[in-house]
Amino acid sequence: MFPTSIDGITQTYLDAIETELQQAVKRANNFGNTKLHDMLAYHMGWQGELKNVETRGKRIRPLLVLLSCSAAGGDWTRALPGATAVELVHNFSLIHDDIEDHSPLRRGRPTIWKKWGIPQAINTGDAMFALAHLEAIRLSKTVSPSIALKAVEILQSTCLHLTQGQYLDLSYESKNDLTIEDYWQMVEGKTAALMAACTKLGAMVANLDDNKSTFYHKFGWMLGMAFQVQDDLLGIWGNSSLTGKSSQSDLVTGKITLPVLYGLSKGGKFAARWKQGSIHTGEVLEIANILENEGGKEFSQAQVNHFINEALSSLEQAHPSGIAAEAIKNLAASLVNRQS
Amino acid sequence: MFPTSIDGITQTYLDAIETELQQAVKRANNFGNTKLHDMLAYHMGWQGELKNVETRGKRIRPLLVLLSCSAAGGDWTRALPGATAVELVHNFSLIHDDIEDHSPLRRGRPTIWKKWGIPQAINTGDAMFALAHLEAIRLSKTVSPSIALKAVEILQSTCLHLTQGQYLDLSYESKNDLTIEDYWQMVEGKTAALMAACTKLGAMVANLDDNKSTFYHKFGWMLGMAFQVQDDLLGIWGNSSLTGKSSQSDLVTGKITLPVLYGLSKGGKFAARWKQGSIHTGEVLEIANILENEGGKEFSQAQVNHFINEALSSLEQAHPSGIAAEAIKNLAASLVNRQS
Repeated sequence: MFPTSIDGITQTYLDAIETELQQAVKRANNFGNTKLHDMLAYHMGWQGELKNVETRGKRIRPLLVLLSCSAAGGDWTRALPGATAVELVHNFSLIHDDIEDHSPLRRGRPTIWKKWGIPQAINTGDAMFALAHLEAIRLSKTVSPSIALKAVEILQSTCLHLTQGQYLDLSYESKNDLTIEDYWQMVEGKTAALMAACTKLGAMVANLDDNKSTFYHKFGWMLGMAFQVQDDLLGIWGNSSLTGKSSQSDLVTGKITLPVLYGLSKGGKFAARWKQGSIHTGEVLEIANILENEGGKEFSQAQVNHFINEALSSLEQAHPSGIAAEAIKNLAASLVNRQS
Repeated sequence: MFPTSIDGITQTYLDAIETELQQAVKRANNFGNTKLHDMLAYHMGWQGELKNVETRGKRIRPLLVLLSCSAAGGDWTRALPGATAVELVHNFSLIHDDIEDHSPLRRGRPTIWKKWGIPQAINTGDAMFALAHLEAIRLSKTVSPSIALKAVEILQSTCLHLTQGQYLDLSYESKNDLTIEDYWQMVEGKTAALMAACTKLGAMVANLDDNKSTFYHKFGWMLGMAFQVQDDLLGIWGNSSLTGKSSQSDLVTGKITLPVLYGLSKGGKFAARWKQGSIHTGEVLEIANILENEGGKEFSQAQVNHFINEALSSLEQAHPSGIAAEAIKNLAASLVNRQS
């Protein structure tokens, strides 16, 4: 009933999240047709080819909701509708991002648009978005109406911020003079806002006042920034980027990331090569080395450290308690130390 | 202050709706970048080329919310966030439908995807959806938390139903054995559900009990069914379909509508020609005549009459009152007697 280890609490929460997610997605069946549900369930990793646990996401965001709630002294089961809603929002954005970025694969399987075409994929993403909002409203069954309404408003405002981040991301593709400042603005919308909503939602369900829940909000925000820069580092210097699958390197796909922007700002060998056009897989190791020598890796790593320190110091100010406090610090550390 | 004519009340409501819509869409600016807002404002008909009142929709759905509220004895100003939310939901679905149907024009202007590309158009639709939900939540500022939560839940459930209808619509394109039954299921999701949510929302804000607000719900539902079949009739026998712009005829675009399904079920000359492939503009008048002779027009007209009678009889059972009652009957009649 009350897990007493970090692994125990994490597994208990993950199991509850998966059960709630499946129930939420089943609502897509409410109007008689099951195929829309099946596409959603495929995306969530529950149906279709290669059906196993690796086809699912890591459920980091719902875990942040439940752990924040618990660390703030609340009953994590009351935060479940919020946890489910944020994961559905995240997955809605993945379905649409995959179309917008023309990505054929996600977690090793064909993306929805690749399997069922762009029109059905857009609509399936919309269904996921509607399910997310329906789930958020269910908070009114576990907490007071005023907290529920405020939580729902924060989540929906975050969704708007997500579309702002995505707008910037898409518009940057055709911009040649991007600055690191532009990059931060995009990451705030695309990653930090939703992580901040997760930790804030958890704290609100635990009935923390505005003042204290702000510490949780900042914790999630800074963690999101650190998470994204770590992602950028892995996209160039991660194992699968340098060896074996170097076609997945961000250098090959031409993705604008923090190390790349840093390299461009230096105007050295990396910048000169980048401006010449697409980098092919055969050059990946060499160009990653050039960028590292010009300071792109060190600078980005310093940013990760800065953000994670800010995150943890904000969390400390909130005085989290119990095994959940240990688990959430553990989760934060694992996100910035991960190798994939 | 209190308009005493049908035209007066309608214009007062339309003005209030437009003001609220503009305020709601301005929230897209909350995160510092104005271009996402500008794309939304273009779609809404407030910015960009041919900027004039005809670039806007008729705002039928928000009008239904406000008139239902008023006819049910409520204060229509309290229903404004609900009215705004349904119009934003409707426009979110138009932005995505235009991509899914590959439609280059809407209200005589290039669609968002045609102007800014598919990725930005998907994301702009998502922003409109997020704004709709944010607006719905604002009902908590005008009515009690319990009514607000219920209204929001109905609207969000309707959004899910919309995606089910759209799923069917898209899947029907590749189906050869469609029945009239399939058609009704699609129209329920695509048109009836949202109109029913409009009239129900209005009644709920007026504090009608579940029993009485069900009459409003049925009124909107049946009106939506009638509205869609009338649209189908205009798509084949409307002025712009038969003369001048016959390239816009549903016979040319190959759209599966009620008259077409009726004609196909007869297995006569119309069905034989339809199965031979695309109809060109030069044949439109002749084939429309064949379909009319085989009963497709009369059958569909009878359906419109059936649904509008059901709608009005349900409305009567709700005992609507005042000038709003006259205005809403007027609106219903105009929707099924319209020529465009």
